[in-house]
Amino acid sequence: MKAITVNPPDAGVTIKHVNYRKNGVKIKILENGICGTDREIVNGELNSAALPYKYNYLILGHEAIGTIMEDRVIFKKGDIVMPVNRRGCGRCLNCLNGRPDFCETGNFIEAGIKGMQGFMSEYIYDDENYLIKVPEDIKDMAILAQPLSDLEKSLDEIINIQKRMIWTCSDNTFHCRKALVIGTGTIGILFSLLLRTYGFDVTIANKRYASENELKIFNLADIRYYNSMNGYSFGENTFDLIIEASGSDANVISETIGFIKNNGILGLFGFIKRGDLTVSRYVLQNIVYKSIVIAGLINGQKPHFEMAINHLIQWKHLFPGIEKLLITDSIKIDDENKIINALTKKAGGEIKIKILWH
Amino acid sequence: MKAITVNPPDAGVTIKHVNYRKNGVKIKILENGICGTDREIVNGELNSAALPYKYNYLILGHEAIGTIMEDRVIFKKGDIVMPVNRRGCGRCLNCLNGRPDFCETGNFIEAGIKGMQGFMSEYIYDDENYLIKVPEDIKDMAILAQPLSDLEKSLDEIINIQKRMIWTCSDNTFHCRKALVIGTGTIGILFSLLLRTYGFDVTIANKRYASENELKIFNLADIRYYNSMNGYSFGENTFDLIIEASGSDANVISETIGFIKNNGILGLFGFIKRGDLTVSRYVLQNIVYKSIVIAGLINGQKPHFEMAINHLIQWKHLFPGIEKLLITDSIKIDDENKIINALTKKAGGEIKIKILWH
Amino acid sequence: MKAITVNPPDAGVTIKHVNYRKNGVKIKILENGICGTDREIVNGELNSAALPYKYNYLILGHEAIGTIMEDRVIFKKGDIVMPVNRRGCGRCLNCLNGRPDFCETGNFIEAGIKGMQGFMSEYIYDDENYLIKVPEDIKDMAILAQPLSDLEKSLDEIINIQKRMIWTCSDNTFHCRKALVIGTGTIGILFSLLLRTYGFDVTIANKRYASENELKIFNLADIRYYNSMNGYSFGENTFDLIIEASGSDANVISETIGFIKNNGILGLFGFIKRGDLTVSRYVLQNIVYKSIVIAGLINGQKPHFEMAINHLIQWKHLFPGIEKLLITDSIKIDDENKIINALTKKAGGEIKIKILWH
Amino acid sequence: MKAITVNPPDAGVTIKHVNYRKNGVKIKILENGICGTDREIVNGELNSAALPYKYNYLILGHEAIGTIMEDRVIFKKGDIVMPVNRRGCGRCLNCLNGRPDFCETGNFIEAGIKGMQGFMSEYIYDDENYLIKVPEDIKDMAILAQPLSDLEKSLDEIINIQKRMIWTCSDNTFHCRKALVIGTGTIGILFSLLLRTYGFDVTIANKRYASENELKIFNLADIRYYNSMNGYSFGENTFDLIIEASGSDANVISETIGFIKNNGILGLFGFIKRGDLTVSRYVLQNIVYKSIVIAGLINGQKPHFEMAINHLIQWKHLFPGIEKLLITDSIKIDDENKIINALTKKAGGEIKIKILWH
Repeated sequence: MKAITVNPPDAGVTIKHVNYRKNGVKIKILENGICGTDREIVNGELNSAALPYKYNYLILGHEAIGTIMEDRVIFKKGDIVMPVNRRGCGRCLNCLNGRPDFCETGNFIEAGIKGMQGFMSEYIYDDENYLIKVPEDIKDMAILAQPLSDLEKSLDEIINIQKRMIWTCSDNTFHCRKALVIGTGTIGILFSLLLRTYGFDVTIANKRYASENELKIFNLADIRYYNSMNGYSFGENTFDLIIEASGSDANVISETIGFIKNNGILGLFGFIKRGDLTVSRYVLQNIVYKSIVIAGLINGQKPHFEMAINHLIQWKHLFPGIEKLLITDSIKIDDENKIINALTKKAGGEIKIKILWH
Repeated sequence: MKAITVNPPDAGVTIKHVNYRKNGVKIKILENGICGTDREIVNGELNSAALPYKYNYLILGHEAIGTIMEDRVIFKKGDIVMPVNRRGCGRCLNCLNGRPDFCETGNFIEAGIKGMQGFMSEYIYDDENYLIKVPEDIKDMAILAQPLSDLEKSLDEIINIQKRMIWTCSDNTFHCRKALVIGTGTIGILFSLLLRTYGFDVTIANKRYASENELKIFNLADIRYYNSMNGYSFGENTFDLIIEASGSDANVISETIGFIKNNGILGLFGFIKRGDLTVSRYVLQNIVYKSIVIAGLINGQKPHFEMAINHLIQWKHLFPGIEKLLITDSIKIDDENKIINALTKKAGGEIKIKILWH
Repeated sequence: MKAITVNPPDAGVTIKHVNYRKNGVKIKILENGICGTDREIVNGELNSAALPYKYNYLILGHEAIGTIMEDRVIFKKGDIVMPVNRRGCGRCLNCLNGRPDFCETGNFIEAGIKGMQGFMSEYIYDDENYLIKVPEDIKDMAILAQPLSDLEKSLDEIINIQKRMIWTCSDNTFHCRKALVIGTGTIGILFSLLLRTYGFDVTIANKRYASENELKIFNLADIRYYNSMNGYSFGENTFDLIIEASGSDANVISETIGFIKNNGILGLFGFIKRGDLTVSRYVLQNIVYKSIVIAGLINGQKPHFEMAINHLIQWKHLFPGIEKLLITDSIKIDDENKIINALTKKAGGEIKIKILWH
Repeated sequence: MKAITVNPPDAGVTIKHVNYRKNGVKIKILENGICGTDREIVNGELNSAALPYKYNYLILGHEAIGTIMEDRVIFKKGDIVMPVNRRGCGRCLNCLNGRPDFCETGNFIEAGIKGMQGFMSEYIYDDENYLIKVPEDIKDMAILAQPLSDLEKSLDEIINIQKRMIWTCSDNTFHCRKALVIGTGTIGILFSLLLRTYGFDVTIANKRYASENELKIFNLADIRYYNSMNGYSFGENTFDLIIEASGSDANVISETIGFIKNNGILGLFGFIKRGDLTVSRYVLQNIVYKSIVIAGLINGQKPHFEMAINHLIQWKHLFPGIEKLLITDSIKIDDENKIINALTKKAGGEIKIKILWH
């Protein structure tokens, strides 16, 4: 079958025929999403990328929806599903409890990234327990459920961490809480939408003017845009929550951490790619004095995929036309040059690009 | 009555007679503890120090035990008690729920520090609800319950934060968890003892050889001492928990953060006094990749004082002679020069110094 | 303005003109829902029903949607909203934290039931903080959000109670958990749908054949129907969760409690109206031996209304046509005889009946 | 070696020599405690009692302390330890997480009761991970740690369940909460002491006058005694918590459940032995209306044994002489008739009886 393959740690990407199958239900791939991690692997920049055991190639791709090809216990032929991308080590308590996002041994595997064949192929084979049902009528934006699952997990973790004290407002919701999301990539935008769904007041920032497309999204969901081209300027106790979703320069943290309120939290989601972080002792003293928490956020699991699917349904209702604003391009699998190009560098104005297999 | 007073933001400390009383049960002070915060106020170094409303002096002291002078509802004449030192803003939900350690407005008051007369005086007057019963037979070390209450709260918060995943071991205890405590002051030592009590494997570090007194404590409680004079050298995934309790140089954080395991946590308790923190983007990436949390830790409240008293009882049993090792000096109130001196600078080998009023 | 009024503890209901207004934003009522509690008040059977302070009539109704009549801080003219029906005592910690569902003093008030004018009137006036936004395109079934909010709270409470141990499955979802819902009224059906949404395997039971309308609903959501006309017959360890939502005869509990598994939970939502409960000592021993919990479940608050609105959006997507199956009748406000009749006794096949004001 | 053996389901008990050993560290038994469950087995009344796989006798006993006979990894020769009595099924998530008290399969084993040789023998052999360190100076009352561990778990579970709302008081402690403990056996008395330790106001009840010995205990710990000979008479909203620890007649529940406050909880610990429970529909309605929970409570695990040991240390300090009041008799192993007798029926005034092996 046709597959998009890489050879970590080497750079490069190939579309070729492979003879690969494994046990499990057969799924015909409908669409893949392209994400920054795919590009890091293609460009030979991701240290943690690793070939599956006994294979000399890695099928790329961890975002996919596909069609079930045969009746099974949970799913029927024709059902549309999305596979969960990270799988547990089989040994640590978190993995045994279905939470390889918190794998303690580090020996988890991850489709298209680390030790497990990915989803950019004509067919995949998988255990039904790792598949999520996709309702027919959100098929057009369902590919977003994978990146969104990571954010569902992240916000769930943040809310759990904040149970260290009373963080809900006097009406028991989060309506009194203000969030700043840094970065307007897929993650920044999806995280902002999710926070709005939970009732947070949301500001999203990037070091440039927002595009027309972005402004449409922000208007739909009542998200404030902040152009940080000339730095950040807010009051000292402005935000209850800051999400670093830019994965850009380390000093975005030192520029914004001072705006966090008492009991606030800074969530690090992006993989910082440039620069180093320097913060003064006064910042460190404030972390103590104000009971601030900084948390690394990564990977969603099955319950988070389910939450993501449900939120996509909601968003389609609440924000008409959102699917067209979020999916900025679709490339047919036969257009190989364009695919290779899309897997190598991010397009201008891109939010999410899909590969269409059919 | 006699009282030890200061005039923040000015440096200086005076032992003088004051005419101060307020509503509440009368308590004859038996002992005060001296802590680093007292010295910062005396040396004019604590920005947050503030006079009580309408007063032109601040009675120092937030660690005290005393004797109830009259029968009341909860306490009887002769009962020994310790007052809680921080009081709520009266408005935010955390304060209304008895948790001014998480005061959201920042308008809490703190005895001997910020807006509330302290406990270094012949008598104090207080609401019974802010008093903790001290059992007669731990009177000699009960003064440690105030600093220990801060650590009870801190460890409780850490355990709550870590409920974001499964952090208990396969026997549902914390016996498989390894902690590094940085700093061998009162806080470092008490935190180490507390972690041992919870079953953690504990290493305590300082940039020098341990004193004979310290080694006796560490032996009693099976705590490992690490001399970090030449830096820190551990494996990459050694500690589940690092507690910064030195309040010294910022780079102690960059030197140790790399030893934290997957799902681990770095607790900042000390107020870093020197230097700035610089960490590379690789450290930031690891915080994300390993789901690490950094948490500012401060102040214990009434439930934590009660936990502290209970743990002191235990320690007296489990670690015979511990009280003499932890209380390194006692100064009579009449020895004014020695008191002024002790309030100005830390003595060599000091763990906890008490002022005796009777 | 026109209003539907009652005079508890007396039976009876009147549609008449009243001069009532209070502070707050003016809302034109669009629809009311009729619920069993309304009928209990109308029939003089609800002991807890009480007139508002200084009034000699009670406007009935606690389920309503309406249109905002003027621009305000949170809402704009034309927004559709649903008011929260229970309001706190203003004193206990649960009420101060926005959770009058757990009011400790019992001095909460409840629209149309106890001490607060209800929503069955041409206009209501309310504080914006007690209003929930209703998206335009679920307007037709939004009236269900009030009863559903009670169940959102109930299931949230059940999941919280079950955190006493590990209740999630090996994939961290609830897919391995089996629930039995007793009763096919509004509550039984909505609870079943909600449990399905959370991934539970659901059986719903009543002592008769299911109607065609009911079967359509159950098929849409993959809910199993059980006719308990001849009693209940399941294995000893069948259900992880049983919800009593019939509010009928007490012995429904003794007939089903034996089917609960280890660590299971029995949620009591219905107000049992007939009979007394007798259980043998062996049942009591099993509650101990199997770590079973029985929990009284009541009332949802603002966060639960928000969850309810979101689930209604989902259901409309996932279960096409569900709104017509759930809303079994709509009566115009001018059809006074039919309204009085509907408020007096339940119709055959009724799930939810609405009163239309416009 | 000498051992006390039974043959469930047959009644009877024998002291005889057996050839039994298994892998693990060798422990010389110092003391056993006798408990009601032992007597139920001896009298052939415990249905769940079962022989170990491939054995035709069961060594009785689940309460023991002993001396380690050889240096090992965790323990050294001469250390005093207590073994945990219930062991997991090895398959369900709760057991894998060290919580066989919530074993979902029911296939746990239990020393001296179900499928595992007990501790009433000269020596036992065990895995170090199931042993709890006993400090030398509470050796005289350490046997109480096993029953107390069950109550530590029970109270921990209760506090977890009550996190469904705010149950802590305005000072964040449990000082405003009132508990009623029914029954004055080992369990009733230890539960009362534990609740006092957590700050609850405690009333303990039995259907007779308290003995002099009991009154001494209650006075030490400020526990109120209630003689329920003529029934129970309290206000309608008196108790936040009722613990059934009598294991006597079922109607003790119907007689007391009406005294539970809003949000209160009824914990069932005792195995009800006589009668059936009948409650009216009004009681059931109140469970709903007041958000009451009823919870079956059973078995403590390793963390609870550790908590129990720590509380025994505290109690020895806080309640001087408590060990002599709680241990009402000690029988030497050679006094076989007296042992057989003690294992057959409860002595008058008995709280805890020990068997001494040396």
